[in-house]
Amino acid sequence: MSKLELNSNIHNYEVAFCDSFNFLDDLMNIEKKVFVIDKNVYKLYKELFKNIRKDELFLFDAIEEKKTLKTVEKIYKFLATKDAKRNITLISIGGGITQDVTGFVASTLYRGIKWIFIPTTFLAQADSCIGSKTSLNFETYKNILGGFYPPNKIFIQPDFLDTLSKKDYYSGIGEVIKFALLKESYPKDFNSIVNMVEQVKRKNDRLVTIKKTMQVKKIYIDEDEFDTGKRNLFNYGHCFGHALENSSHYEIPHGIAVIIGMIYANIVALNRSLISKDIYKFLNKKLFLPNIPIKLNIKLFDEKILLESMKNDKKRVGKDLTIVIPTDDDIRAIKVDDLTFTEFSKSYNQLLKILKLK
Amino acid sequence: MSKLELNSNIHNYEVAFCDSFNFLDDLMNIEKKVFVIDKNVYKLYKELFKNIRKDELFLFDAIEEKKTLKTVEKIYKFLATKDAKRNITLISIGGGITQDVTGFVASTLYRGIKWIFIPTTFLAQADSCIGSKTSLNFETYKNILGGFYPPNKIFIQPDFLDTLSKKDYYSGIGEVIKFALLKESYPKDFNSIVNMVEQVKRKNDRLVTIKKTMQVKKIYIDEDEFDTGKRNLFNYGHCFGHALENSSHYEIPHGIAVIIGMIYANIVALNRSLISKDIYKFLNKKLFLPNIPIKLNIKLFDEKILLESMKNDKKRVGKDLTIVIPTDDDIRAIKVDDLTFTEFSKSYNQLLKILKLK
Repeated sequence: MSKLELNSNIHNYEVAFCDSFNFLDDLMNIEKKVFVIDKNVYKLYKELFKNIRKDELFLFDAIEEKKTLKTVEKIYKFLATKDAKRNITLISIGGGITQDVTGFVASTLYRGIKWIFIPTTFLAQADSCIGSKTSLNFETYKNILGGFYPPNKIFIQPDFLDTLSKKDYYSGIGEVIKFALLKESYPKDFNSIVNMVEQVKRKNDRLVTIKKTMQVKKIYIDEDEFDTGKRNLFNYGHCFGHALENSSHYEIPHGIAVIIGMIYANIVALNRSLISKDIYKFLNKKLFLPNIPIKLNIKLFDEKILLESMKNDKKRVGKDLTIVIPTDDDIRAIKVDDLTFTEFSKSYNQLLKILKLK
Repeated sequence: MSKLELNSNIHNYEVAFCDSFNFLDDLMNIEKKVFVIDKNVYKLYKELFKNIRKDELFLFDAIEEKKTLKTVEKIYKFLATKDAKRNITLISIGGGITQDVTGFVASTLYRGIKWIFIPTTFLAQADSCIGSKTSLNFETYKNILGGFYPPNKIFIQPDFLDTLSKKDYYSGIGEVIKFALLKESYPKDFNSIVNMVEQVKRKNDRLVTIKKTMQVKKIYIDEDEFDTGKRNLFNYGHCFGHALENSSHYEIPHGIAVIIGMIYANIVALNRSLISKDIYKFLNKKLFLPNIPIKLNIKLFDEKILLESMKNDKKRVGKDLTIVIPTDDDIRAIKVDDLTFTEFSKSYNQLLKILKLK
């Protein structure tokens, strides 16, 4: 079992990479604990969880609509009835939504409780599980609630990925591509990124890619945990991507929305003459378009909702829109706050053409 | 205008001690802001706030029953409709409840926004405004929700205290006594604490006492912001005090509940032969009993509710109860986790006698 140590202003923590499920036995021995598990994961791996006591188990539908204060309150309620208070350990098992909801609970109950997280999706394993962020949706606003609070320990067991649908698996690939593109090594070797993405689709190479992706992320979050500078650049593909999740009512999963968001960001950069047509075309052809494994529909791209969502982006600071775009052919990213509504609309129409929706 | 700098793992911050209300003019010049003000404070100081724009103003009843997620959600809603997102500044004005509610909002909206706090009660000025804690009640559980998030800046203007009721003023004195007793200078000169408490009742000496109290607190929070060790000792008077707030349905204000809680903690210590009868009697006679300016009623001391509340204390770790008690005549405090139910009950009955309720 190899390990990765992470620093945090809240508390340092550790990722353990596992090749068996034995770590679950150790968790069963924690004295005062509750498990919060995605209902779907629980069903798929019932045998694995058979020793969990009923009074220590909270199951919930880990769907986007439940990433709310309402679910959080249900978990508060479940925990508040236990004798153990601040000394309780919350163990959560699931994907990003499970992480977001339980991270919010762990950070806001008793001013912070011990939290162990076992990510079960590619996206959560390779990306979201580190970096301390928690998010909740509020009314029509996506991810506007949340703070910074890392788990105390994370266990990565890639066998969980075997039961992911193709759509969900590719959702993880979106973030893997993003981190590979943001990695600070110049000049960038895009062909090796293309190869890595092909590799990751093969079972045996998954863990290597997860580790590589985490290493890129670690450098950014070590320097800027609270996302006030450099870490902003992780929003490459996300400014438009989040809006697209909204506009598609989450039919387009996060990572795929991020891939489309990177295409969009590159269109903006191309229009501003920041990147060359060559690199723009190469990335679309080799990295982005082949990794969108779902049929897209124009209905999912409602221009009004997309614009409205970008207006409500928590990173927006002025009257124009905020977006992270590449500034050169090495895809060095910057955040700009001056994307005008006209520019938004022009790039939107170009995107539809590229996606063959128009 | 003198200043105090404070360190925090979240962000460093500063307390400014003011002798006029001019600082409000500077706040009015902040470009993207909202004010959240205790309705009562707003009414009392209407003239002061006359230039605040209506669309930048949120008023609420800062009462214990509103220290909930429901109020927090109303403020989220008010803020979410503004164009400014992460770059908005929340300016809150009021006592501890206003601080708790707005601190929770500031820490959980957009993963943390800029927050300026102007405490208007003695309790909030001398104690709660520093130390990063935010708290909400949840269902019947007091203060179980919340985290750590300091304001970016605090303005202390003691003239706000002129409109406090005697009951609320004394509520601040409770914490002043606690910090004076916890100050690490030995042997302790209790007569000087008695003098300070008398002084603080005179208008001109207030600011000096507020600064002195903050200095004691600063030493503890610099070392243990996240309350995992030394800072626990601030709960001297609070374990029973919180329970009493519950049992009295908040008729007994916080600081006065803390004074009674310190009497209770000392009874436990006396029964365990940790402190001498002499010091125990001196403190009751000179510091605690003279600073309870309200008529107490046995009905406010419901034994069942008191026990139930102490069972639900977030610091409780085992089957017995948790309490902070003095270990010697210098009132060096420790946290113990072995207060049995029998001991609880015996001390409770002794307390009733001392308060002449039995």
